[in-house]
Amino acid sequence: MTQIELARKGATSKEMEEISQREGIEVEILRRRVASGKIVIPRNVVREDITAIGVGYGLRVKVNANIGTSPDRSSAEEEIKKAEIAVRYGADTLMDLSTGGDLDKIRRRIMEIPVPLGTVPIYQIAVEATRKKGSIVEITEDDVFSVIENQAKEGVDFMTIHAGITSDSLQTLLNQKRLTGIVSRGGSLLASWMLHNDKENPLYEEFDYLLEIAKEYDVTLSLGDALRPGSIHDATDKPQIHELHILAELVEKSREKGVQCMVEGPGHIPINEIEANVILEKRICKGAPFYVLGPIVTDIAPGYDHITAAIGGAIAAMAGADFLCYVTPSEHLALPEIEDVKLGVIAAKIAAHAADIAKGLDLEKDYEMSKARADLDWEKQFKVCIDSDKASKLRRERHPKDERVCTMCGEFCAMKTVKEFFS
Amino acid sequence: MTQIELARKGATSKEMEEISQREGIEVEILRRRVASGKIVIPRNVVREDITAIGVGYGLRVKVNANIGTSPDRSSAEEEIKKAEIAVRYGADTLMDLSTGGDLDKIRRRIMEIPVPLGTVPIYQIAVEATRKKGSIVEITEDDVFSVIENQAKEGVDFMTIHAGITSDSLQTLLNQKRLTGIVSRGGSLLASWMLHNDKENPLYEEFDYLLEIAKEYDVTLSLGDALRPGSIHDATDKPQIHELHILAELVEKSREKGVQCMVEGPGHIPINEIEANVILEKRICKGAPFYVLGPIVTDIAPGYDHITAAIGGAIAAMAGADFLCYVTPSEHLALPEIEDVKLGVIAAKIAAHAADIAKGLDLEKDYEMSKARADLDWEKQFKVCIDSDKASKLRRERHPKDERVCTMCGEFCAMKTVKEFFS
Repeated sequence: MTQIELARKGATSKEMEEISQREGIEVEILRRRVASGKIVIPRNVVREDITAIGVGYGLRVKVNANIGTSPDRSSAEEEIKKAEIAVRYGADTLMDLSTGGDLDKIRRRIMEIPVPLGTVPIYQIAVEATRKKGSIVEITEDDVFSVIENQAKEGVDFMTIHAGITSDSLQTLLNQKRLTGIVSRGGSLLASWMLHNDKENPLYEEFDYLLEIAKEYDVTLSLGDALRPGSIHDATDKPQIHELHILAELVEKSREKGVQCMVEGPGHIPINEIEANVILEKRICKGAPFYVLGPIVTDIAPGYDHITAAIGGAIAAMAGADFLCYVTPSEHLALPEIEDVKLGVIAAKIAAHAADIAKGLDLEKDYEMSKARADLDWEKQFKVCIDSDKASKLRRERHPKDERVCTMCGEFCAMKTVKEFFS
Repeated sequence: MTQIELARKGATSKEMEEISQREGIEVEILRRRVASGKIVIPRNVVREDITAIGVGYGLRVKVNANIGTSPDRSSAEEEIKKAEIAVRYGADTLMDLSTGGDLDKIRRRIMEIPVPLGTVPIYQIAVEATRKKGSIVEITEDDVFSVIENQAKEGVDFMTIHAGITSDSLQTLLNQKRLTGIVSRGGSLLASWMLHNDKENPLYEEFDYLLEIAKEYDVTLSLGDALRPGSIHDATDKPQIHELHILAELVEKSREKGVQCMVEGPGHIPINEIEANVILEKRICKGAPFYVLGPIVTDIAPGYDHITAAIGGAIAAMAGADFLCYVTPSEHLALPEIEDVKLGVIAAKIAAHAADIAKGLDLEKDYEMSKARADLDWEKQFKVCIDSDKASKLRRERHPKDERVCTMCGEFCAMKTVKEFFS
């Protein structure tokens, strides 16, 4: 049985117990939210020994790190290192987006890391079609579902499924004067296939079959936003909202069949529209967990999109988004390298944590940190902070004359002054 | 006459004309807002050839970069380089917070850079008192005002004045169980002096005298928040709000005397309280421009406080804050170096720009950038983006096989796919 089916039957799984403990939420409350679909636990039944992660209402905001090879750069070793550093700095889940090299082998290696793993199966479908048939437009429905089934069988915990790009929503897009068209890789591949073959999206048309596979392995569906806006100009436009309504239908279908699902969101959004996007998703999709990519709040900062995404992610999470997909400094420019992955995870964790604080969750570390600051206790500060190596290195390299303070204020340190004159 | 006096007489200054042009705001609207105190133009009458900057309601959000030596590190050359890189990456103003070396000489050097310059005169007062008399507590009222007058005479455009820490507000603080006491350097120095000498803060007691100096040179007062919270735990507490009420009185006094002023804000604030802080300041201080430090949205990220501040700054600016003081990655750890200054300015500019977008200002660059992306026009992208050097270097170092795309998606680039199949 899937987690949602178990919960509906009134049973609490081992995973629910584990999450309840870790997050300090009563297991009965958690169970009810899993039963209603407001919380998902992405965990394939065949996977062993992974940390159970809950995503959704009332839980701490989670962070996903995308890793994976590309046709231009395909070292499995490097991806493992990325995965390791991502988890070390706090990524709750990983997605393997590989499109270069031996995809099955790379995925299996990454699955040795004990956190929930997501994929976008259309990537493997496209890569294999291109290798075998020369083009994505040549794939058959069988190609599509055999990859999905194989990935499910091997233990993938959640899958991005672009089933919301349909003949209808694609038509809305084609009628729209968009600046950046389709920026979703999966979306652009499916749209090309649909236009070329003049056929409906098989992921939509055969959604019931997909649900059977997902149910068998308890794969959580992450309903992808193939028509997400790829620029501030296109944000919150008609194709995006059209697709969101289709995703809402699919949420209902998934829940009916006892399949866990969440909904993916943009992308590029101006900060004044982020809250509306979250409210819309939560309302239309009946409280399904919202998984956002960024959102990025300006288009003009390539090289710094971990920062544009941290701003958007914090605002989205404060408004109720449950799951932040990190963005690295190399977004829009190149495949991320190891240092990019680290920076991306840290920025997304800051955003998630800032939103947790806003909800009154996870306040202890900030208290400990600030107490250590007031005490001028540097070792304690390095213990509590999110990147102890960086913080201690920075202080070591710019060492103050007076051990108590730092080189910014030296003898005029406010903390030191207060200690001297107020006690 | 000061800018506010001119505006009240119905006259428009050269600076108002310049700002009106640059920001695309009607000069008559600008003049009325300057007259009401909702916009300030920090510009000392004796300074020549600086870019006039407007700060306040309806204008683009501005960014300040703090530079300056410390007792542990005091190279004038390095500070000049910091100032140059800050302005190059978009800082609208500079503040010289030097507390090490020859303070007058360093300030004069920095003033060669043609942007408005701010100072915190209590730093020079404290440094000189410590050098001559051994301790800050030995200073006299004369020491205080002679430094302020000298800096005004030499052309400082705006000054942080901690006049809101009074016997009363300090008592509120002492009655409060704060985690981090006073984290404002100026605040801690003044509080020590007040407690040691059992006297009222001279900046408050002699505020009228201060206004005379400020008026003579049209120095814009930046009413400092000596009692700002220095941790999430202390945010929006009684001492902070008590001081804000005192600052509001001082805003009224300044306006009565024809002196331009703005109000400084925290500091460390959880993201759910930022909007309330801005609304409170705008309401209590009758629309005075709000100049915030960060705000930083979690305490646990030393090494990444440019990111915690970018999140807080964007939210504050969206809510109406007018002026963001940057925070660098070395905040809480050490005096920033040149690369920190660059990262701090870029992060603050991203926050300011994200808020401008939210207000419908300055949308052209994002449009151009995204158009270039859709066109796969990389040279154009590098021209429009905020750090052309970094973006082009990153692409150059990870060069794709196919010139049109990047190494992230390679042949599966959504932009390329759309171009191929949709046209």
